Amino acid sequence: MSRLVMKFGGTSVGDVERIRRVARLVAAERAPDGKPGRGLAVVVSAMSGETNKLVALAEDAGKGLSPDRFNDEYDVVVATGEQVTTGLLALALRAMGVPARSWQGWQIKVESSDAHASARINTIDATALGEAIDAGEVAIIPGFQGVTDEDRITTLGRGGSDTSAVAVAAALGAERCDIYTDVDGVYTTDPRITSKARKLDRISYEEMLEMASLGSKVLQTRSVELAMAKRVPVRVLSSFVEPGEPNPGTIVCDEEEIVEKQVVSGIAYSRDEAKVSLKGLVDHPGVAAEIFGRMAEANINVDMIVQAPSRTEGAVNMTFTLPEREADRARDILVAAKDQIGFDSAEVRKDVSKVSVIGVGMRSHVGVAKTMFEALSAKGINIQNISTSEIKISVLIDSSYTELAVRALHTAYGLDAVA
Amino acid sequence: MSRLVMKFGGTSVGDVERIRRVARLVAAERAPDGKPGRGLAVVVSAMSGETNKLVALAEDAGKGLSPDRFNDEYDVVVATGEQVTTGLLALALRAMGVPARSWQGWQIKVESSDAHASARINTIDATALGEAIDAGEVAIIPGFQGVTDEDRITTLGRGGSDTSAVAVAAALGAERCDIYTDVDGVYTTDPRITSKARKLDRISYEEMLEMASLGSKVLQTRSVELAMAKRVPVRVLSSFVEPGEPNPGTIVCDEEEIVEKQVVSGIAYSRDEAKVSLKGLVDHPGVAAEIFGRMAEANINVDMIVQAPSRTEGAVNMTFTLPEREADRARDILVAAKDQIGFDSAEVRKDVSKVSVIGVGMRSHVGVAKTMFEALSAKGINIQNISTSEIKISVLIDSSYTELAVRALHTAYGLDAVA
Repeated sequence: MSRLVMKFGGTSVGDVERIRRVARLVAAERAPDGKPGRGLAVVVSAMSGETNKLVALAEDAGKGLSPDRFNDEYDVVVATGEQVTTGLLALALRAMGVPARSWQGWQIKVESSDAHASARINTIDATALGEAIDAGEVAIIPGFQGVTDEDRITTLGRGGSDTSAVAVAAALGAERCDIYTDVDGVYTTDPRITSKARKLDRISYEEMLEMASLGSKVLQTRSVELAMAKRVPVRVLSSFVEPGEPNPGTIVCDEEEIVEKQVVSGIAYSRDEAKVSLKGLVDHPGVAAEIFGRMAEANINVDMIVQAPSRTEGAVNMTFTLPEREADRARDILVAAKDQIGFDSAEVRKDVSKVSVIGVGMRSHVGVAKTMFEALSAKGINIQNISTSEIKISVLIDSSYTELAVRALHTAYGLDAVA
Repeated sequence: MSRLVMKFGGTSVGDVERIRRVARLVAAERAPDGKPGRGLAVVVSAMSGETNKLVALAEDAGKGLSPDRFNDEYDVVVATGEQVTTGLLALALRAMGVPARSWQGWQIKVESSDAHASARINTIDATALGEAIDAGEVAIIPGFQGVTDEDRITTLGRGGSDTSAVAVAAALGAERCDIYTDVDGVYTTDPRITSKARKLDRISYEEMLEMASLGSKVLQTRSVELAMAKRVPVRVLSSFVEPGEPNPGTIVCDEEEIVEKQVVSGIAYSRDEAKVSLKGLVDHPGVAAEIFGRMAEANINVDMIVQAPSRTEGAVNMTFTLPEREADRARDILVAAKDQIGFDSAEVRKDVSKVSVIGVGMRSHVGVAKTMFEALSAKGINIQNISTSEIKISVLIDSSYTELAVRALHTAYGLDAVA
């Protein structure tokens, strides 16, 4: 018996009409050749808007509480959003004649860490679940939900539903995890920036991971990491179609399963960046550890670290990037420790963007960076910082050039759709 | 360690401000003499309006499903309303410095029958719960919720939260169950009908049961039955006060604990009544069973059955009452079976009310009925039907006389408040 996991986000289940469309899509997948032949588990989010409403209630009721006295009951409140959707989708399926039932996190069980509000799934006991779906009953599972080994409700943090779906697929040994979303697949770049963006048929886990963490919001990073670790093929496809309409989406899979590898698969960008520059930094061992230790303590992710000699004897300048929303907090922390760290000035710039070219083909091709720098230079775009990984080159530029840079690179790497 | 159960309905927890007032009332009961000394469990309903919203969603998604394919997932959906309140109240208490946590039905567990949407509580394992509250942590429990022995979520049906509270109190061996509501106690009759209605300090279970089932909506009938069976003293009091304000409420308890017994404790009425009259009924054995068997099959409760000779030889007339909303359905059922039952005509009147005098003192006092009939007669009110129990006399009258009858009886039995 083949098994499939389908996942629908908040917009896809935003009202009962949409839930009925989801039910039609589920019914069609259950019986692809007209007769039921496939075990199906469906992971759902809360109806759009519900989670925000529940979060606001919890934050109001628990005003002033520290996270360790807040998060467990916050989880009790917000987990109800997904529970409601599971019941409604089970009912909508039954109303179409399809056997279905909901399985809450604690019923399955989806055992997680006890890090409330940002728990991680440890194990899923899919024995009963697998038997039920093999017997032809569609299982509807709340995304985002878990339960500790002491039977307390947890949530996985925002966007955790993708991760739930992949984890369920892994536990069930499903042939694939289909993530239905409001786009019809993964594109070579953001179609809002260039109409020449093309939908990819396939993309490797590694590339998707870079895409996800670099601002392309199609899939949540953790879900891709998990899919890669458990080797679960994931398909991203549109939830806004009726059964029978073409909806191939994009398959996220092992690099080996991609026959025609591109050198560069996509261009990602992120406007949520800021650059911190420390000038006249005392050049002694441990100063970097001093700076980035403080950032790590404050839970601030830094990136693109560059150190350069200063004009002052025995001093250096250092720049690094971080999420724009953390910039002021980071500066305050550094300024408060100015004497301990030892520097002249700290400057923050928020008008910067990170643009990246991503492709597993880079591993075996030279000249990828050269193409990038030439293309940007030809448009008069100045590169402020550079960072690279095995399958990615990122540059920091003035944010007003973001679209121009993305379009130029899309063309330079031959990604433009043929008109 | 003494233990107390408090219960708050939907209006009392209608928004976060009200939940904070509830938290203040809970905090005051936990530490009546300034220091925590009492184990507290608090049972809560869904925020007012939420259950209706959830019911509407479930009915929309499950349109056309029979109850046996609808009710289990309906329970999954509607049970979330109470769950949200438990989390919010726990947070509000913690924000005031009071240790608290929520306990869902499946965590405790509150084991119920599998009659989804109208389940009955079988057993509550209060061991862990009792230990937690004795250690000073307030337990917040969703009313209305249970779990089957197969770990599926159930609900007890509308108004089940009172029953949950009494069941938890019984399981915890609590000294009392305080039901906070939008009235400040149980009255001798509806204060909207006469300003001379008085709040009772105490009322017996039996009397309260008659009051509850006769249209006084203060407490749900099942909760009173359970309190009587388990001998749990119940107090009805106002949730719209601040801690410290006088709020004695009404104690519902054993008859023996009421020192000054009244012959009549209260006057109840119900406008939700209809009268069915069958004329020219063939007078043979089994005809009553034929009629009331059909009503029972259709789940229609009948009351006040009266049989009288007809002018036709060998025939009788029969009248009985039933809830007004069932009247048309009952007539249709009878008319469809006219030939099998054997009668000339079926007539329904909806302009009738039932007025009852209730009091355990009736057991030992004579003349109670005489006082009633005289008082009604003095006002020119015609009695259509009469029924009696050990502690109650009910009459059916034209509904336009309802208020007049209630006021006359309230005066006749000496219940009027001294001005």
